[in-house]
Amino acid sequence: MFELLGSLDSPARLRTLHSAALGPLADELRAFILHSVSTTGGHLSANLGTVELTIALHYVFNTPHDRIIWDVGHQAYAHKILTGRREEMGGIRQLGGISGFPRRCESTYDCFGTAHSSTSISAALGMALAARNLAQRRHCIAVIGDGALSGGMAFEALNNAGLYGDLPFLVILNDNDMSISPSVGMLREHLGALTSHQVSRDASLFKAMGLAYSGPIDGHDLGELVRALNIVKDRRGPQLLHIVTEKGHGYSPAAANPVLYHGPGKFDPIEGIRAAPAGALTYTQVFGQWLADEAERDPRVIAITPAMREGSGLVAFEQRFAERYFDVGIAEQHALTFAAGLAAGGMKPVVAIYSTFLQRGYDQLIHDIALQQLPVVFAIDRAGIVGADGATHMGAFDIAYLRCIPHLIVMAPADEQECRQMLHTAIQQPGPCAVRYPRGSGSGIVPSSELTELAVGKGEIRRVCRQPCGTRVAILAFGSMTQRAMEAAELLDVTVANMRFIKPLDRHLIQTLALEHDWLVTVEEGCIMGGAGSACLEYLASQNLHPALLQLGLPDQFVEHGTPEQLLSQCGLDAAGIVRSIHQFADERQLGCPSPSAATAYQASA
Amino acid sequence: MFELLGSLDSPARLRTLHSAALGPLADELRAFILHSVSTTGGHLSANLGTVELTIALHYVFNTPHDRIIWDVGHQAYAHKILTGRREEMGGIRQLGGISGFPRRCESTYDCFGTAHSSTSISAALGMALAARNLAQRRHCIAVIGDGALSGGMAFEALNNAGLYGDLPFLVILNDNDMSISPSVGMLREHLGALTSHQVSRDASLFKAMGLAYSGPIDGHDLGELVRALNIVKDRRGPQLLHIVTEKGHGYSPAAANPVLYHGPGKFDPIEGIRAAPAGALTYTQVFGQWLADEAERDPRVIAITPAMREGSGLVAFEQRFAERYFDVGIAEQHALTFAAGLAAGGMKPVVAIYSTFLQRGYDQLIHDIALQQLPVVFAIDRAGIVGADGATHMGAFDIAYLRCIPHLIVMAPADEQECRQMLHTAIQQPGPCAVRYPRGSGSGIVPSSELTELAVGKGEIRRVCRQPCGTRVAILAFGSMTQRAMEAAELLDVTVANMRFIKPLDRHLIQTLALEHDWLVTVEEGCIMGGAGSACLEYLASQNLHPALLQLGLPDQFVEHGTPEQLLSQCGLDAAGIVRSIHQFADERQLGCPSPSAATAYQASA
Repeated sequence: MFELLGSLDSPARLRTLHSAALGPLADELRAFILHSVSTTGGHLSANLGTVELTIALHYVFNTPHDRIIWDVGHQAYAHKILTGRREEMGGIRQLGGISGFPRRCESTYDCFGTAHSSTSISAALGMALAARNLAQRRHCIAVIGDGALSGGMAFEALNNAGLYGDLPFLVILNDNDMSISPSVGMLREHLGALTSHQVSRDASLFKAMGLAYSGPIDGHDLGELVRALNIVKDRRGPQLLHIVTEKGHGYSPAAANPVLYHGPGKFDPIEGIRAAPAGALTYTQVFGQWLADEAERDPRVIAITPAMREGSGLVAFEQRFAERYFDVGIAEQHALTFAAGLAAGGMKPVVAIYSTFLQRGYDQLIHDIALQQLPVVFAIDRAGIVGADGATHMGAFDIAYLRCIPHLIVMAPADEQECRQMLHTAIQQPGPCAVRYPRGSGSGIVPSSELTELAVGKGEIRRVCRQPCGTRVAILAFGSMTQRAMEAAELLDVTVANMRFIKPLDRHLIQTLALEHDWLVTVEEGCIMGGAGSACLEYLASQNLHPALLQLGLPDQFVEHGTPEQLLSQCGLDAAGIVRSIHQFADERQLGCPSPSAATAYQASA
Repeated sequence: MFELLGSLDSPARLRTLHSAALGPLADELRAFILHSVSTTGGHLSANLGTVELTIALHYVFNTPHDRIIWDVGHQAYAHKILTGRREEMGGIRQLGGISGFPRRCESTYDCFGTAHSSTSISAALGMALAARNLAQRRHCIAVIGDGALSGGMAFEALNNAGLYGDLPFLVILNDNDMSISPSVGMLREHLGALTSHQVSRDASLFKAMGLAYSGPIDGHDLGELVRALNIVKDRRGPQLLHIVTEKGHGYSPAAANPVLYHGPGKFDPIEGIRAAPAGALTYTQVFGQWLADEAERDPRVIAITPAMREGSGLVAFEQRFAERYFDVGIAEQHALTFAAGLAAGGMKPVVAIYSTFLQRGYDQLIHDIALQQLPVVFAIDRAGIVGADGATHMGAFDIAYLRCIPHLIVMAPADEQECRQMLHTAIQQPGPCAVRYPRGSGSGIVPSSELTELAVGKGEIRRVCRQPCGTRVAILAFGSMTQRAMEAAELLDVTVANMRFIKPLDRHLIQTLALEHDWLVTVEEGCIMGGAGSACLEYLASQNLHPALLQLGLPDQFVEHGTPEQLLSQCGLDAAGIVRSIHQFADERQLGCPSPSAATAYQASA
């Protein structure tokens, strides 16, 4: 079935093929990708769009000596398949399997790891200048989509790249009119005008930035691609080759709906993706519903997303409140300061953003929002373990990097109802607030339709340890870990507090728990270093309270891909892991530990 | 002397003047600024360049109803003077005085606080859309320099601004060919070509981005400015007005050397700035010298600065190693990923950056550098209290936001010699390392010319408490606080450890100190929340050690402007404050505290 593909064990072998064989190879490769992704789940639309480009690049350039950097990197499956990882595609994005993104540790052909957008030009320029400095002759190629090009750092890189008039340096603009959501912004319109020849090459943005522009060419025409690459390959100075591709090309359901086929789970390629049976509400959906309800009541509510309409649950909001919906493109820095401007102008902006991408707007959060105490709400999705996307996307750091910022309120809901309440609480505040919630669904609670507030800085006790004379232990649980702590508590008979607020902490609650228990456990879905547990330690030390305290959370390492359940278990953050850690801690320190058998007699106190 | 200026108590009054009076007003205003800044110190070159623009803006627009946002904001002195703060200029940037930057809490005319670069277009766009949404007729104007325009977020904002074809929205490009250092990049060349008409307006970058371009005009010609502003004021849709100004205009020493006069101390306007007598080496100079020595030995060493050649001590380096010096413009995101590309290509990049600006590259540090374990060295200047620049520039958060990142080594030197050693240690490592050091000079030690390494993760005891039977206290001092802790220790007879490493901590040392002392103090020039003291708490708790521990550091608030000494004292981080806090802590807890009188008998153990 994959005859040609099966005979290719390396790009060197690919380069021995007659050019007439490339078309059939592309057909096989596309079929393989469709087969593979429909079996494993993964990124589809983007990968179907780059089949010909990938073949042409490895055909024309001397990889891995020449360097290809795939911006974002979710479109690099064909690259993985052609560079010795065809047989490993069955395990992609799974625990122990290969990553869904290029990784330096995975292959010498992956010369630079990617996943977050807009990094490729900077990295390729660094490599090109390193090669110049070491007197190596080497082509360095950044492949970047039109969506990724809207990220400011790509512009920063172009602003520098144009300076090196004699450097072999190539940017391939893979123009498919898409981010994950459809592309937005004036750059998008400019590319459209270039493609339709309404704007001349000499008036191109890239010309203004000092890059030699060529194109646009059809990115699915292998002959044209190979020809164009051979021409730019021999030119000195920074080149930009504009190719036009179609996300989902060659598989009509994906081409017709590239967003739906962006990152599907398993599906039948013949039937296509079928509507999944409605499962538990995800936190993303809870957020989307809350925002619409809030916007209905208050015309000042504004939604901002950096190119994550679907992922952030804003599809319905956009339809209902188009005037108050802003997809700013892949532009996290702008998203935050734009929100600050809206807040300064009297609006109530809500920035919907993933934990890992909020890292891109960290300075703006401190300097433009917190310092000015502007009322911006951050709805931080994918906080904690993210699963198949792996290390590049983990939302491990937000608690540590947020809680040090003055004037910021930081909350983490224990369940869906509380998520809605926290978001509503956040939008009532006169200053900035963040609500962090995990990927996927929680305990399955359907939030009430009411909008109710929580008291700021107040947690709650969800379960009381009943040990009348034995060792009393309390778990201080943050956000998504509350449910797992409750499960553990059923086996251990310990107290569980749902802390709710990371900042300000519920100091009274912590003090009470410390005084009424023999030792404490903190648990959070975030890094231990500098996390919410550390906040508790700081407060306890300041109050001259020194109970033994076990901190549970994410370890000081990047967590790889796998299912969230596998990874949480690996990190000891499922109920069994919490129980195990508590037993171990008690044993090591010869602290008392409540017996598992005692647990069943007790009930949670609400 | 300032007759016209003295009669103007508000922009409303300014708008009643005949246009013929504006020229004489500009002369007075320029003379006032020169007089004022030469008396107080502060930003000069930029402010002399914006005198006419400021007058024209307040003359044409209905401030404060119309909004002016000054990007970076160090050029807003004329704005402050014309908006009711003339008499407060004598206290600018001083403790209790007005800020050197626009601040919302200072005046209704300061509609958006600035200081970090490239935020104005995002903020102004947010305000303009808020006004549209609230059906307010209001002009929103971003004034941005050509240097600030090189920051990616400005591009992100332009990419969005162009979409609103009917919005009254004005960007004024104040083109003076300068960041703080001379501007760099292709944008710079493009603006030059526009100014000299080598590129037509229709081929401008701004046209491509959907903005109506007008100019260039002479930004010191009041008649032309007022005319041009009146024209663009009445146009619908996003406008960009390109004005050309001269930094330092009207004061020839500053015009001839705008970098020297960027932010001078007090000086005599007639004599100009005279070479200061050589004082103690600053940490910045220690870094610059180290980098040159390292580059001399190793051709792979590369220096990268985001537009801070002077501030980061790289002037001499650039002259000696031009091929290995990269000023990337105000582009922190690119700076970091460019460094990652260089490191992946076999070089040893050193990124010289201020603590507060590293916040702009946080995601790149995590995703492109730490995750890939690439050997990039961060020389983090201005870590801690910065002084006159105040809250926007404080380097308070880096310990908290860095120590949660896996694979990163974080060091803080106790003195200049150790700074050099740490930098050399950093560049020997196979992965990323950060060395954070404060503004200004340290203890006055002149580093040796040798390059010597420190053991990673090892601190040292600098002084041993001699109390044979009384209460024994140990201060765990980080970086710049070591010297002050030593001074405090002379009065208290306590042990002082110079911890050196924030990550990895010297665990053995902490354990030993905890076991051999009755209680502990941590002290750092960084925020307490999530800081190095918290790292110690985490470790102690993990080892079942629970000594009373006093955490000293920066409070959970933004620290305002003043001299570093005043601010450190205010935060209780001078020697007297450390002594006071230790006494108070001991009193409150009824812990023993060594008597001050006992101290003189003891000497430091080296």
